[in-house]
Amino acid sequence: MSDKKQKKPQKLKARLARGFPDRSSSDIRATDQMMAKIRTVYERFGFEPVETPFIEYTDALGKFLPDSDRPNEGVFSFQDDDDQWLSLRYDLTAPLARHVAENFNDIQLPYRTYRAGWVFRNEKPGPGRFRQFMQFDADIVGAPGVQADAEMCMMMADTMEALGIPRGDYVIRVNNRKVLDGVMEAIGLVGPENAAKRLTVLRAIDKLDKFGAEGVKLLLGAGRWDGEKEGEGDFAPGAGLNEEQVLRLVTSYLGTSFRDGETPSDSMSFGFWKDAVSGSDLGMQGVAELESMAQICRNAGYETDRVKFDPSVVRGLEYYTGPVYEAELLGGIPNEKGQIVQFGSVGGGGRYDGLVSRFMGQPVPATGFSIGVSRLMTALKNLGKLSGEAASGPILVTIMDRDRIGDYAKMAQELRVALNPLDEDGRPLGPTVPVELFQGNPKDFPKQLRYADRRGAPIAIIQGGNEKELGQVIVKDLIEGKRIAETITDNAEWREAKAGEHLVAEAELVSTVKSILEAQAAYGREA
Amino acid sequence: MSDKKQKKPQKLKARLARGFPDRSSSDIRATDQMMAKIRTVYERFGFEPVETPFIEYTDALGKFLPDSDRPNEGVFSFQDDDDQWLSLRYDLTAPLARHVAENFNDIQLPYRTYRAGWVFRNEKPGPGRFRQFMQFDADIVGAPGVQADAEMCMMMADTMEALGIPRGDYVIRVNNRKVLDGVMEAIGLVGPENAAKRLTVLRAIDKLDKFGAEGVKLLLGAGRWDGEKEGEGDFAPGAGLNEEQVLRLVTSYLGTSFRDGETPSDSMSFGFWKDAVSGSDLGMQGVAELESMAQICRNAGYETDRVKFDPSVVRGLEYYTGPVYEAELLGGIPNEKGQIVQFGSVGGGGRYDGLVSRFMGQPVPATGFSIGVSRLMTALKNLGKLSGEAASGPILVTIMDRDRIGDYAKMAQELRVALNPLDEDGRPLGPTVPVELFQGNPKDFPKQLRYADRRGAPIAIIQGGNEKELGQVIVKDLIEGKRIAETITDNAEWREAKAGEHLVAEAELVSTVKSILEAQAAYGREA
Repeated sequence: MSDKKQKKPQKLKARLARGFPDRSSSDIRATDQMMAKIRTVYERFGFEPVETPFIEYTDALGKFLPDSDRPNEGVFSFQDDDDQWLSLRYDLTAPLARHVAENFNDIQLPYRTYRAGWVFRNEKPGPGRFRQFMQFDADIVGAPGVQADAEMCMMMADTMEALGIPRGDYVIRVNNRKVLDGVMEAIGLVGPENAAKRLTVLRAIDKLDKFGAEGVKLLLGAGRWDGEKEGEGDFAPGAGLNEEQVLRLVTSYLGTSFRDGETPSDSMSFGFWKDAVSGSDLGMQGVAELESMAQICRNAGYETDRVKFDPSVVRGLEYYTGPVYEAELLGGIPNEKGQIVQFGSVGGGGRYDGLVSRFMGQPVPATGFSIGVSRLMTALKNLGKLSGEAASGPILVTIMDRDRIGDYAKMAQELRVALNPLDEDGRPLGPTVPVELFQGNPKDFPKQLRYADRRGAPIAIIQGGNEKELGQVIVKDLIEGKRIAETITDNAEWREAKAGEHLVAEAELVSTVKSILEAQAAYGREA
Repeated sequence: MSDKKQKKPQKLKARLARGFPDRSSSDIRATDQMMAKIRTVYERFGFEPVETPFIEYTDALGKFLPDSDRPNEGVFSFQDDDDQWLSLRYDLTAPLARHVAENFNDIQLPYRTYRAGWVFRNEKPGPGRFRQFMQFDADIVGAPGVQADAEMCMMMADTMEALGIPRGDYVIRVNNRKVLDGVMEAIGLVGPENAAKRLTVLRAIDKLDKFGAEGVKLLLGAGRWDGEKEGEGDFAPGAGLNEEQVLRLVTSYLGTSFRDGETPSDSMSFGFWKDAVSGSDLGMQGVAELESMAQICRNAGYETDRVKFDPSVVRGLEYYTGPVYEAELLGGIPNEKGQIVQFGSVGGGGRYDGLVSRFMGQPVPATGFSIGVSRLMTALKNLGKLSGEAASGPILVTIMDRDRIGDYAKMAQELRVALNPLDEDGRPLGPTVPVELFQGNPKDFPKQLRYADRRGAPIAIIQGGNEKELGQVIVKDLIEGKRIAETITDNAEWREAKAGEHLVAEAELVSTVKSILEAQAAYGREA
């Protein structure tokens, strides 16, 4: 062709930015189904929606990201035309604190709210690690007592069960930042000079499930080799604690002697923890708070199979000041490759009494948690608890005569209205049955049927000149047609069969389509 | 207090960034209700959801904002750590083009999709003018014929009616970029040297509804003073066209002789337009496309009260290449101050055959439109078509004894489950009845009842030591209580009345609450 001789114009490359994915129909539908169920649970507890914008002044958000190793990263920021710094929100908690402080006189405390929203992290993207993701948060602001934290834990448990995760396949694990700080105090890790060491200790504690007691001991002491034996693989430097400190942490605090056997009673656990924090008032206060939470949860009927007090829970965010909690999926979950993997935490939170008061002259206690929406959706999809499928493929009105497109549009609209009845408030009475007018190039008719096939269309509507003249229309049952076609071997036989085709009067179009859809549904239920 | 002597720490100011608003419960609920109805219409037409990320490479988005006066503004952009430029999306069409081009081999054309999402404009914020807002788009990619544009117009009309806007209170207005270009050609405004003039002419045409024929004539000619008479107010410079050019535009093309009288028939309109573009092949082609669209819409039963061909429609976006269309609310709508205002356009779109092919070696025809979600929601709220109210205030379980919070939590949970039955798929069978455990400081009991009042709670649950001992609980009907209280004048009488209180056995808690809710609903229906 002569075009080839011309210089090719520089073509733009169509590509996603690193770490920013598209979302498929299936993921959107599955997420919406899941979020509707979560929302229902939160609303049953009296939470109401409120949302903050995507962009805030950088100083209003503060910088409370877990990975404090990289202080200059984590947040997308840019300067406004008045030179003030703006940032994309990196979570939904810091903006909520700004919202409450800004509207403090109009807000009725205790203030229960929820919100789902996208957050942004300026981090190195990798497989399964994105730079935008959705969180679904619930918070109570102005709730000073740990009964609020207990209610949050119970609400997380209810949420898991509302999503179809059976009791025993998840657990809400609870700890207290005051206990963790108390333990540090008890082993002498105090003052700013020990900040880095404390961080290493917390990370070691967090690894109990992954590496077991022996691994944690190494991480607390001299360090740990990642390979089969010492000297092999990568080396993780340890916290350099002495033997007594390690023992107190691992044996007394983490109570590892239990961990492979039975779950200890609350009173037994708390007894151990008290030993571990003895000498630290803050630590003792933390244990007492957990005892109150345990009493409330147990009285309300939430036992250790739902809410479990666990010393190895370490939530990374700096702003937590009291109880911390997370929802963990237990047991294996198939991943995309069909391998069974430990999924772990799908959300968590805690008490953040200082976050609102950054803006205020008074303390404003608050507690809340965040669910990682995409992560939980993936788990539920892989467990078969969410489908993401559309209720039905579209009924396709094909185009035989290009100059009668108005007629075809009219048929499509007639079907659309008849197949999707509404209640008096305009809400659909059943799942949507989509109806499409073919919108590609209509010249090649078999292409229209191939399109119907690829779209999973249950029925195609066909009206050529002959049918039009007789006031008739062909309603083609594509599912029945496919079934018949499978038994046909001969081409002539094929053309003869007109598999699944019903030639009916125009006035019977709607009733014919309805009865075919009913027959297909009945066949589907049998199969 | 001794605290006052200490130096006050520098407090952070809690404030929203300019142009980025919070969203209230009421707005979120109203928007969600509205979007669910829009989604149902789109799905009935066979559209499926797909979403793109908030951030894209700047070059992939291109720069197609309407306000080309300010080429360096409009988009929030920043550099990634690999020095590539990223931008927050400013609409949902440019990212869709990138998505289609990137996944071209996997996508089944014609591709019908919809998506709702936030977009960002780096513009000067003002009253009602925000820097983030939500759009709800529908597009068909790979649809070469104007039957797709006709279907889009009909779907917009269906959407307006699904939202409760009666026929006659809205109209879909349609024009064609080819007609506009053809008119320019016919009056000799061609070539890059006339680009600025063409822009002024388009803006003048767009002002027909606002300023009338005389105003447009001034804008096309010498310019227009904004005040009561010439020389007063601000001056808008005109396009400087000669008398013949102005006449051809205003009388022949805009056909202003009609505009205050009856709506002309399609054939009459198109007759005028053909005169106006005579001599321009492009213009004649544009009119022919509109004639096809008219034929399809009219055959399908959509008359001029729903889809109207209107020469004054000018959609600003540069990427349109064929039919353009917009949904306009007619008649007055009350604003926040109760004044009746003309609301105008709530959404629009058109054909953009070049946007996907920027990335491809082949043409990819497409058409689609965008609804301004917040704008439309505001209109519907002001028209009383959306409420944004919660179905019910929360039932409040109050706290009398601090050491029995577990008991109260159990009552709350029992009510929550009993009042919110689910179907077998875990979906609620009715509107949510929230149940709250009081989470503020429980010391001051009247404060708990004041909280209940401010939250619109229909019922409060009270159990002190006496009741507990007798296995009883007080269910307080707060609505009945308020009614009785209004008839009481005396304080002693008040204490005696225990207005609306029902003292019942613990086992009757749920049934008592249910019957009070039923009585309240019946009373509400009567009132």
